[in-house]
Amino acid sequence: MRELLAFVDGDRLRADIEATAAFGAVDTADPDARGRTNRTGSAANRRARDYLSERLREAGLSVTVDPVGNVAGTWVPDGADPEAAPVASGSHLDSVPEGGIFDGPLGVYAALEAVRALQDAEVDLDRPVTVVSFTEEEGATFGDGLVGSSVATGARSVEAAHALTDDDGRSLGEALSEIGYRGEGTVDPSGWDGFLELHVEQNTVLETAGAAVGVVTTIPGLTHCSVTVAGEADHAGATAMDDRTDALTAAAEFVGDVERAAVETADELDSAAVGTVGSLTVSPNATNVIPGRVRAGVDIRDVTAEGIERVVSAARDSLARLERDRGVQTTFDRHLDVAPTPMSDRLREAARAAAADCTVESIDLPSGAGHDAMRVADATDAALLFAPSRGGYSHSHKEWTDWADCARATEVLAGAIAAAATDGS
Amino acid sequence: MRELLAFVDGDRLRADIEATAAFGAVDTADPDARGRTNRTGSAANRRARDYLSERLREAGLSVTVDPVGNVAGTWVPDGADPEAAPVASGSHLDSVPEGGIFDGPLGVYAALEAVRALQDAEVDLDRPVTVVSFTEEEGATFGDGLVGSSVATGARSVEAAHALTDDDGRSLGEALSEIGYRGEGTVDPSGWDGFLELHVEQNTVLETAGAAVGVVTTIPGLTHCSVTVAGEADHAGATAMDDRTDALTAAAEFVGDVERAAVETADELDSAAVGTVGSLTVSPNATNVIPGRVRAGVDIRDVTAEGIERVVSAARDSLARLERDRGVQTTFDRHLDVAPTPMSDRLREAARAAAADCTVESIDLPSGAGHDAMRVADATDAALLFAPSRGGYSHSHKEWTDWADCARATEVLAGAIAAAATDGS
Repeated sequence: MRELLAFVDGDRLRADIEATAAFGAVDTADPDARGRTNRTGSAANRRARDYLSERLREAGLSVTVDPVGNVAGTWVPDGADPEAAPVASGSHLDSVPEGGIFDGPLGVYAALEAVRALQDAEVDLDRPVTVVSFTEEEGATFGDGLVGSSVATGARSVEAAHALTDDDGRSLGEALSEIGYRGEGTVDPSGWDGFLELHVEQNTVLETAGAAVGVVTTIPGLTHCSVTVAGEADHAGATAMDDRTDALTAAAEFVGDVERAAVETADELDSAAVGTVGSLTVSPNATNVIPGRVRAGVDIRDVTAEGIERVVSAARDSLARLERDRGVQTTFDRHLDVAPTPMSDRLREAARAAAADCTVESIDLPSGAGHDAMRVADATDAALLFAPSRGGYSHSHKEWTDWADCARATEVLAGAIAAAATDGS
Repeated sequence: MRELLAFVDGDRLRADIEATAAFGAVDTADPDARGRTNRTGSAANRRARDYLSERLREAGLSVTVDPVGNVAGTWVPDGADPEAAPVASGSHLDSVPEGGIFDGPLGVYAALEAVRALQDAEVDLDRPVTVVSFTEEEGATFGDGLVGSSVATGARSVEAAHALTDDDGRSLGEALSEIGYRGEGTVDPSGWDGFLELHVEQNTVLETAGAAVGVVTTIPGLTHCSVTVAGEADHAGATAMDDRTDALTAAAEFVGDVERAAVETADELDSAAVGTVGSLTVSPNATNVIPGRVRAGVDIRDVTAEGIERVVSAARDSLARLERDRGVQTTFDRHLDVAPTPMSDRLREAARAAAADCTVESIDLPSGAGHDAMRVADATDAALLFAPSRGGYSHSHKEWTDWADCARATEVLAGAIAAAATDGS
């Protein structure tokens, strides 16, 4: 596949990403910083989709839009079986408010650039290649993220997705109709041979290691718990220390227990276990009143289910101990629970081999955040590749990936797609 | 003084407290619960003041109103030196919104009932007796409390007090003019021989001990500190445990350290030391974001300056350790600092002797909250007596002191006033 490399055109890729960056561009004071606000259903989002559709057609792909606005373009190479399950690649075009220009578009346009390079290099392939852009990955405007990939893989119904509303009460169904992207086609990952997503890392593991590409081993599982600790609000002056049932001193021990459990679990399992009490709300929250009630939001993740269960169990044990030792009443509601998603061994191996072909260093690493590949993995083999993020900034106009790094990661993606689309490779 | 007891009329006292309770009465669902909202400068407040002025005049006292609305009525007993420094007693008539009916009025009308009993018993006294009601003790409407006693003792200027505004922008000066209580007289505690205040306990020490009256040893000192802990907000999934600077896990240790310091100080000094982190505000306060910043409000009290300094010092040490061990940045602002106020030995002894005369049990105890007696103690000898609070409820329509307990505490107050107003007693 070495011959393919010369055909990946970094300038063509850059032009597509910069064109997309112009739709909803944020005016930043820093000339080196480039942000964009591309909310699903906005005029900027329509223009980004129109631009993609044109580029796909221009490259000879047949374009389909499904009822939740997922856009897919399929190319059937000369000599390939048009009925064979295609290899798909892509990401998303929407952004958080004032987000970065690479988060999403890099994966969509790297997939298209890979197809163009495969066309130009006239590589023999056995399977079609599909370039895909999923709707509302971020969940910044409708729902809680991964909306398009959830519907495509059957995790959410079209009706439920259409009924999601933005802060102004506009439904996703209406929004898609208004911008002309409530389609009638089908985007179905269960019919794909596999899926490869290239995304910016949003962390500094690659930068620190000096590696050009990361091959994700697993997208960690995620548990969110809501915790309440109820004590007794009382006068801070008139209540002796041993007459108190202070909800905050109890909650403070809980915060420490969650941290300790995550550190110990990561250590004992040699895993990526993390445990965070990200939110804590105190009532009545007045300096001279003993706190009567605390609500806390807990985020627990790991690449193994065992790691998550260990931290969850330590959190529950902590609350039971606080009820016993401090007389507080507690509740624990595990309201979100997503299992760890291992990426496909076959496609990870194809990506590592492609990196070796490109003579760039690749490293294996877990993903921190969720991505569309997590949902697609429920339906077919999926892989997730990372390009370096300078300084690890994410969801910010400080997000940046050097153009040379974008091109290098796209070369690796193209090689991996070619391998996956070649039977017996 | 035993002959005095028969003349303290519990029904007359109750009638005055109930009449005052009717001004701003709160309609509670519970027939046994009685609340009132008596904000300084309101129509209810004017009526409560008018009622007091009438009762004072009816009992033959000469009434004075000073520029901040403090009301004082002075009685010169037959045979007493009209030029001698009077013994004063009283409390306040204002309340917090939906407060109780005894907090304040008990002290004012117990003082008046003591005078009436002394008159009826024809006890020989050497000094005049002054009944006083201080303006805006609660600070629920204007300023931060103890307004009238602060001005009377010179801790605050009349002008500064007049300039205090309520939530609607009305100044205290205007409010007093409107209700007819911006007077031209003088209420000056530095000219008093001593001051005795009877108040409800707002705690359960008396109830638990089965004592009829509490003799306060000291009004504790009070320190308020604002603390900030700054770490680094980061993605809860993508940031490994050892890469974090979590402001909340650091603040949680601080909460525990303050609690521990207060418990140890109270134990080692055998004092009433208390330390409370009453408020804690987390930013950005989202479940999936590592907390970047925490603000905390700390309340530290004790009857000795040493106890307060020990807890303050432990809190500072805790922050220094957290900066060292956890890499957070912290600030510590001690923005309120009131020294402990010991009550007068002479008047405490008079109160204990009066209780013995009444054959009721009295106990010594520190006060939890601040009262006008705290300010008056800067100008003259002051004592603070407590009547039992059922269940310790305070600033609530659940506040209650049995009428028999009100009468018994008033008998003790009358005895103590008589002793203080008798030279060489």
